[in-house]
Amino acid sequence: MATNKLLLVLCLSLLASEAIGRQGQTQLGQAQQCRIQRLTASQPARQIESEGGVTELWDENEAQFQCAGVAPIRNILRPNSLSLPNFHPAPRLVYIERGQGLLGVSFPGCAETFQSSGRKGRHQQQEQEEQEQGRSSRRDQHQKIRRIRKGDVVALPPGVAHWCFNDGSEELVAVSITDLNHQANQLDQKLRAYYLAGGLPREGRHSQQGQDTFQNVLRGFDEELMAEAFNVPVEIVRRMKGEDGRGLIVNAQGMSMIRPDEREEEREYEGEPRSNGLEETWCTMRLHQNIDERTKADVYSKGAGQLNIVNQHKLPILRFMDMSAEKGKLFSEALYTPHWLINSHGIVYVTRGEAQVQIVDHSGQSIMNDRVKQGSMFVVPQYYAASMKAGRDGIEWLTFRTTGSPMRSPVAGYTSIFRAMPLQIITNSYQIAPSQAQDLKFNRGREGFFAAPRRSS
Amino acid sequence: MATNKLLLVLCLSLLASEAIGRQGQTQLGQAQQCRIQRLTASQPARQIESEGGVTELWDENEAQFQCAGVAPIRNILRPNSLSLPNFHPAPRLVYIERGQGLLGVSFPGCAETFQSSGRKGRHQQQEQEEQEQGRSSRRDQHQKIRRIRKGDVVALPPGVAHWCFNDGSEELVAVSITDLNHQANQLDQKLRAYYLAGGLPREGRHSQQGQDTFQNVLRGFDEELMAEAFNVPVEIVRRMKGEDGRGLIVNAQGMSMIRPDEREEEREYEGEPRSNGLEETWCTMRLHQNIDERTKADVYSKGAGQLNIVNQHKLPILRFMDMSAEKGKLFSEALYTPHWLINSHGIVYVTRGEAQVQIVDHSGQSIMNDRVKQGSMFVVPQYYAASMKAGRDGIEWLTFRTTGSPMRSPVAGYTSIFRAMPLQIITNSYQIAPSQAQDLKFNRGREGFFAAPRRSS
Amino acid sequence: MATNKLLLVLCLSLLASEAIGRQGQTQLGQAQQCRIQRLTASQPARQIESEGGVTELWDENEAQFQCAGVAPIRNILRPNSLSLPNFHPAPRLVYIERGQGLLGVSFPGCAETFQSSGRKGRHQQQEQEEQEQGRSSRRDQHQKIRRIRKGDVVALPPGVAHWCFNDGSEELVAVSITDLNHQANQLDQKLRAYYLAGGLPREGRHSQQGQDTFQNVLRGFDEELMAEAFNVPVEIVRRMKGEDGRGLIVNAQGMSMIRPDEREEEREYEGEPRSNGLEETWCTMRLHQNIDERTKADVYSKGAGQLNIVNQHKLPILRFMDMSAEKGKLFSEALYTPHWLINSHGIVYVTRGEAQVQIVDHSGQSIMNDRVKQGSMFVVPQYYAASMKAGRDGIEWLTFRTTGSPMRSPVAGYTSIFRAMPLQIITNSYQIAPSQAQDLKFNRGREGFFAAPRRSS
Repeated sequence: MATNKLLLVLCLSLLASEAIGRQGQTQLGQAQQCRIQRLTASQPARQIESEGGVTELWDENEAQFQCAGVAPIRNILRPNSLSLPNFHPAPRLVYIERGQGLLGVSFPGCAETFQSSGRKGRHQQQEQEEQEQGRSSRRDQHQKIRRIRKGDVVALPPGVAHWCFNDGSEELVAVSITDLNHQANQLDQKLRAYYLAGGLPREGRHSQQGQDTFQNVLRGFDEELMAEAFNVPVEIVRRMKGEDGRGLIVNAQGMSMIRPDEREEEREYEGEPRSNGLEETWCTMRLHQNIDERTKADVYSKGAGQLNIVNQHKLPILRFMDMSAEKGKLFSEALYTPHWLINSHGIVYVTRGEAQVQIVDHSGQSIMNDRVKQGSMFVVPQYYAASMKAGRDGIEWLTFRTTGSPMRSPVAGYTSIFRAMPLQIITNSYQIAPSQAQDLKFNRGREGFFAAPRRSS
Repeated sequence: MATNKLLLVLCLSLLASEAIGRQGQTQLGQAQQCRIQRLTASQPARQIESEGGVTELWDENEAQFQCAGVAPIRNILRPNSLSLPNFHPAPRLVYIERGQGLLGVSFPGCAETFQSSGRKGRHQQQEQEEQEQGRSSRRDQHQKIRRIRKGDVVALPPGVAHWCFNDGSEELVAVSITDLNHQANQLDQKLRAYYLAGGLPREGRHSQQGQDTFQNVLRGFDEELMAEAFNVPVEIVRRMKGEDGRGLIVNAQGMSMIRPDEREEEREYEGEPRSNGLEETWCTMRLHQNIDERTKADVYSKGAGQLNIVNQHKLPILRFMDMSAEKGKLFSEALYTPHWLINSHGIVYVTRGEAQVQIVDHSGQSIMNDRVKQGSMFVVPQYYAASMKAGRDGIEWLTFRTTGSPMRSPVAGYTSIFRAMPLQIITNSYQIAPSQAQDLKFNRGREGFFAAPRRSS
Repeated sequence: MATNKLLLVLCLSLLASEAIGRQGQTQLGQAQQCRIQRLTASQPARQIESEGGVTELWDENEAQFQCAGVAPIRNILRPNSLSLPNFHPAPRLVYIERGQGLLGVSFPGCAETFQSSGRKGRHQQQEQEEQEQGRSSRRDQHQKIRRIRKGDVVALPPGVAHWCFNDGSEELVAVSITDLNHQANQLDQKLRAYYLAGGLPREGRHSQQGQDTFQNVLRGFDEELMAEAFNVPVEIVRRMKGEDGRGLIVNAQGMSMIRPDEREEEREYEGEPRSNGLEETWCTMRLHQNIDERTKADVYSKGAGQLNIVNQHKLPILRFMDMSAEKGKLFSEALYTPHWLINSHGIVYVTRGEAQVQIVDHSGQSIMNDRVKQGSMFVVPQYYAASMKAGRDGIEWLTFRTTGSPMRSPVAGYTSIFRAMPLQIITNSYQIAPSQAQDLKFNRGREGFFAAPRRSS
């Protein structure tokens, strides 16, 4: 615990030089307003049932999400299900809450560097077909496939198509935030997703959220033109455009052969990334980083809790996405002391347990003082003061942040603003005795912003 | 054609590292909305007739231009005409569609490094006048003059005054996009131009677009103050402020002596530009680059077409302007297969021929399926899927893009998203046979996003 | 005076490479509009009286401040008064108009590198108390304290808490601009300040500006939670939250012992700052730079005036803040010739004397032609042409600019746009004789944009 502060100092300093200097990555659009009277943890407002799973959408028009400029989604893929290829105009940061799967991201112009390792399941009929067409000897080649699993933070850059397949034995649950405010999005601040297959069945109701968002974009093209573009018969094009009613997530077969190179090690990034002008930079960029490993905590307070941070230094693509994530854990009745987030909003998703959360706005009004539970989500607006007291069983949460290099300013503890101030400033500010100011400044000792519960004495 | 892909890979990769990481250069202001129901290629909505030419304005309030945040203009200068000095708060990218001319850009603080080569035409009267005033021996000195000609993409940075003189024998036609959304513009998103001479005659109608935009800004200053500022008689100031009814483009005389150093070679930029702290960086920055040269194509598809790109790597000032241009050409009945633009909008101007254009929005609705012709302009919104099929005589076009490092994601062909996917993803997405998936993935062979017309077989 | 131009060229060039390439640090939000019909120099609209001084607020809703996206404030601290710790979501640039004081800025995570030099004033009672608690041997330690004095430009980054103590014998007057448009502010464009102590008394009137802005943010937290967070008795927390009616600036005692290291030299920054990954970069960053020293003028015109510039090259934190300041001085009846600001707005605060100011908009309408006096403030919108003629006693002013690397384009003088143009362009633009064009171009000789008064001849 004694090295806590040093770590923090180093960590924050590394972040800081870019943090405040962040270059205009956020836009205050028409819809964005942060005049929040009352914050409440919220649940998904809508479910889209598909053949192979469920897509749960929070209401992006809720004041708190409008303020942060984000749209939260939770995808649940059943085993052997495939989330159909799609892309979105704004960057999306995903946290794998449960399960595991395979992720494919189609970077335009990158080489197909992966060979599927065999075709055992397709021996009979297909191979015969292929031989008829003289293709049998060709192994399938495609871009890199990535293994993602519980605890991973996954970065999906704007505009690149991706698919995800649950090859595990339990549900794959992925919670995500799409940063609609990000400069990469030159369209308006509305959740949009472009599906290349599948899509929602049209039910004639256009007013409902998502009704015009999760649609097959190939549907709009002329059949003849598509057939010519791909040089395939029109029947195939009809299948591509067809609304088969399976939705956004489908049951998949014959996928057992696809495997990423499981020997691939996730290494922590060392040093500063630089564009080297070669395709490696982009095509092989690491897209995910585990945030759950206890041994890799960035902040650890004995008896209080811990915090793991995945920022642009650990996962360099986050520099481009200008997002990051923090996984927090508070032990039973421990306290996340009052603090404010300096250079971004925080969007908190509770993954386990309960806590009492207090958030205060700039005018000193308490806008939230609620018990939050597993599965709920709420926004901590930038610069608003927030605190959290864990329940009996502690709490774990994931905070998405709308910056690649998150900073916070704690009010109490070892790295607090009061530690930074001379005693006389404190005594004069509050008209208290010097000894009281000393208490305020030092009573937390070497504890950071996580405080162990007070012993009742 | 076999090296197509390698080229693309390299090119896209070079772009990519900055492309997605682009630093907030676009603002979604109040006016910008991308809820387009229907796209139509459009013609200029208004003409301003001047003594020496015509200024044609597209309606910047059209939904598609509002979405892209741009204002298109076409200037036509007759031979021996001068576009009067003016500046604008947002960066402007110009394509010289026809003719040639001389461009002067007044960078504040840069040295007058050009000496006019002689004064032959002014021998008699003027020289005499000068001798009376004891100035005859002084040669005129001014900043660099640049030769621009058909096929050039010209970058006009925000806030610097520029003039253009048509010294050729045919009309000089310049089509341009002003990026009103660019961060350099801290004013509102309205086309503004500040003229230092000339200006529109006031006709009392203030509601019409442009009526309060193309005006002489010196007009508003006190005559005495101006006379003092320049230390000249008030009569000269009256001429400067006078509305002589000649408009924005005037007939010019005695300009034969001005010549840029025609030996100046346009070299392609090699390596990365770096601010060296010396005036060269800025004062001698290259402002134009030819995009028409067939031999410098970035993408070439035999029998299909070619694409020349001028991005921030070829013309470094585009890094600052965050704009770029692509000159495309499709041969007879060739196809620009469906694709989407990743990190910007595209504003397409047809320079020759005809094509059928299809554009599909995120909900799969076809918002455009029209025949476009020479001289018309339309927007391809970011991430919307678009395709184009050339008419009998092929088509040529110029796409302005609101990024310095453009990227696209093709649906079909050698660099397509389907090539990047494993076959099983395709079979499961569309419920088609593996052989059909292979057709979809490979039938275009080594062709890129430009596809030659199918032989009717 | 002959080296004027060289200096300017070098200076402007240094700025320029980044100037136009500035990366999207400004947002055009909903409220920002620059359709100004009439500009008037304005005075503070509201005063907040506190125990130890006065906070004067200009009306941030005035059209000119809305256009620039800034909120001006003037703070007056009486001797021995303390401006209570607070922070704000947007960067603030301060000019110390009068007096001197001590500034403390609490950077989160930075070390407490300052030891107060002694505790003489507290010998008796307090030390006794401390001994009782076994703390007497501990010297107070806190973060760096900075000496600020008349003429300093002080940068206050967004989100970091700061306090200021007037330890001088005269009033400390600090004029500031908060750049609400800055990208660091992901909240809306409203002046917000978060006080950690004190705060405005609530008077039940919520409509008035500032009424909900200058409040104690700790007030909103639960007392028990606060007590636990700090591990102090609830009584102390009550003092922290209490509204004692002293306001935002309070009388302070026992502050005599706090002293910055007065040997600290303000050196001009040499070379380019680079993040070195160590805490020095951030924790010891220089936050202020004197702009009043006559000998350090960046522009000096004999008989006319001078200009001192503090930009991101002299004070590197301004690169992150994307703001800068210029201190100008015109001698009796000298002229600041017409010019426009290229990459930002200017917010002018008159510190001494008087002048006649003319500002012309893009349509050539004069929107201001007024006499401005000491203490008034007005905006020069980006690209609008402005000029200023000093009164009998000259004028001094401070211009805040919403860019870290300010540029201007003068119409007249040695670095003007006309000097940059060939004579024929001028003759043809205004239909004047070559000799008149020469007058226009050269009559100001080697004078820059400041022109000495014309001798009546």
